[in-house]
Amino acid sequence: MLPADVPALWLRDNCACPDCRDPLTGQKLHQITDLPESLALGTVRELDGVEGWEVVWAPDGHVSRYSAEWLGRPAEPDPRTEDAKDLWGSAASLAEGLPEASWDAYLADDAERLRMLEAVARLGFCLLRDVPVRDGQSREVARSFGYVRETNYGAQFEVREEERPNNLAFTNVAITPHTDNPYRDPVPTLQLLHCLVNDAEGGDSGLVDGFAAAAALRERDADAFAALTGTVVPFVFRDDVTELSAHRPLIGTDPAGRIREVRFNNRGLGTLRLPATQTEAFYAGYRAFARLLLEPDRQLDFRLAPGDCLIFDNTRLFHARTAFARGGARHLQGCYADLDGLFSTVAVLRRKEAQAC
Amino acid sequence: MLPADVPALWLRDNCACPDCRDPLTGQKLHQITDLPESLALGTVRELDGVEGWEVVWAPDGHVSRYSAEWLGRPAEPDPRTEDAKDLWGSAASLAEGLPEASWDAYLADDAERLRMLEAVARLGFCLLRDVPVRDGQSREVARSFGYVRETNYGAQFEVREEERPNNLAFTNVAITPHTDNPYRDPVPTLQLLHCLVNDAEGGDSGLVDGFAAAAALRERDADAFAALTGTVVPFVFRDDVTELSAHRPLIGTDPAGRIREVRFNNRGLGTLRLPATQTEAFYAGYRAFARLLLEPDRQLDFRLAPGDCLIFDNTRLFHARTAFARGGARHLQGCYADLDGLFSTVAVLRRKEAQAC
Repeated sequence: MLPADVPALWLRDNCACPDCRDPLTGQKLHQITDLPESLALGTVRELDGVEGWEVVWAPDGHVSRYSAEWLGRPAEPDPRTEDAKDLWGSAASLAEGLPEASWDAYLADDAERLRMLEAVARLGFCLLRDVPVRDGQSREVARSFGYVRETNYGAQFEVREEERPNNLAFTNVAITPHTDNPYRDPVPTLQLLHCLVNDAEGGDSGLVDGFAAAAALRERDADAFAALTGTVVPFVFRDDVTELSAHRPLIGTDPAGRIREVRFNNRGLGTLRLPATQTEAFYAGYRAFARLLLEPDRQLDFRLAPGDCLIFDNTRLFHARTAFARGGARHLQGCYADLDGLFSTVAVLRRKEAQAC
Repeated sequence: MLPADVPALWLRDNCACPDCRDPLTGQKLHQITDLPESLALGTVRELDGVEGWEVVWAPDGHVSRYSAEWLGRPAEPDPRTEDAKDLWGSAASLAEGLPEASWDAYLADDAERLRMLEAVARLGFCLLRDVPVRDGQSREVARSFGYVRETNYGAQFEVREEERPNNLAFTNVAITPHTDNPYRDPVPTLQLLHCLVNDAEGGDSGLVDGFAAAAALRERDADAFAALTGTVVPFVFRDDVTELSAHRPLIGTDPAGRIREVRFNNRGLGTLRLPATQTEAFYAGYRAFARLLLEPDRQLDFRLAPGDCLIFDNTRLFHARTAFARGGARHLQGCYADLDGLFSTVAVLRRKEAQAC
């Protein structure tokens, strides 16, 4: 029996007949306002051969067919939220160690490529080894799964000590865990960092799972979590030719309250202008969250060697580096990209894998 | 007197002394966890010459200075929300008509450029006239204020009738008001459409202010508005080499409930899998919103001529076109870009204007 509580408008909107859906593109051909006002199930009969139902709709007589299998399919989770992630609250909880592969294997073997891109989707990062040490290579890596996002830092940027830096990233000082470009909206959702030279003393890398940290904060201090999800914070960046600002909470949640993105970067946090009680609640929560991030086990520490290319989710992971010797030989090249292209490549690779079975 | 309720942590975090803020970049040099646990205002004295205060902090003795002017500054609004927009509920309410300028004037005159880019920020669109009719020009326009966002449709796409279209946009059929790429996350926040040829019968353009429509829905039908802001909807797109999905509400609001972005496109609306009562509430709200969009006065109608380049906010405006004759000579070139770059250019142009005064 077709379940009695199936909403008629939903069922009709999902009709898969060639009049309702373009056979080539799968896109729907009707608008929701094209469907009859007084839409109702007319006659319903069981299908032959397959479990399912044919519906003749009132009042327009349109005929739709639905299989029980289709009707019973589960919801696809939003791949951007905590529900679709493997959170790692500490470096030690990365049971399988660093998700890594050689560039040659990644290029040659769809299964390796899928494993790496799924690591970005589920753990927030992966590390490609032996990527050719040459100019522009981080963009090549980005193009292997998606598209480069150009910004005021260029299509590619150089992370090394600069004479007149417009950003602390381009100095030799230590940088505590943060996300990049919190002052940009839409924020770049992926970052790539490709190591060309790392001979300086210091300059080690660190990653912290911001979703795990936000979930821990929610567990320990619900008021702090509420203040960080509920307070819109201005982030700002300004140089001679650029003036960016974004107004977003530190912890972004979806309408169901699931953690969906984090922003964290005191360098670019602008001046909050709110009533004193709200400001106090925000700063108390902010300090609690910042303390939690510095818990010693939370950070995964490693050192990039020439040829290593780190790909990470800039809406989830915080990245950090230790200071390095002034004038030290350390040079990374980086670029930004977006998660949508990466998720699309994952889906297409999975499709190919399923067809090959 | 320094107001008694100023939160100490906020005040200290905003210290502008060269030890707290990089003089070159303006970025903060301390982390929130670097500030003393027991931070408190020690001694406060009035500044000489300017209204303001010098604070000597306990327990660390750090000295900060704040002017009364700085303390009293108003909050900067989030430029992405309805609060920063001029909503136009009907074409007639666009008091000054279409915001338009010639490409030559836009290039030559900073004031013209600012006027056009501010129109995109406040009204959601502008129209540049006499843009050279040549390949790749829409990207030139995007680069005049920001950066092109490359997608699976390329850095640039051709809107004309195709033999084997992967999208209804690339056919001759009518398309009702919608946003582009709702299945992409982050969604491209700007779209540019540059007309190369428009000799076909039909193929007129239309724009609807989605923020004004969403605000009208909130006014008339609070349940519908709540269903559309509170229901996460899957949007999907799939072809041979692409499989995109995004899970977002139709009307996105910030934590304070302000309208911040809209997505609307039945073609790509996937299958909602929710309890029946939630599905029914969503579909009732969805149909109410769709009906409201079709109210005859709501849509601004115009016809693109060769050389016209339309720039519009894809998180706010719905765009539409009438059908055109099969095989008709109509060819637009388009690209996507992002609002952050546009807002940055607006801010820098305003800075220049203020300096020139």
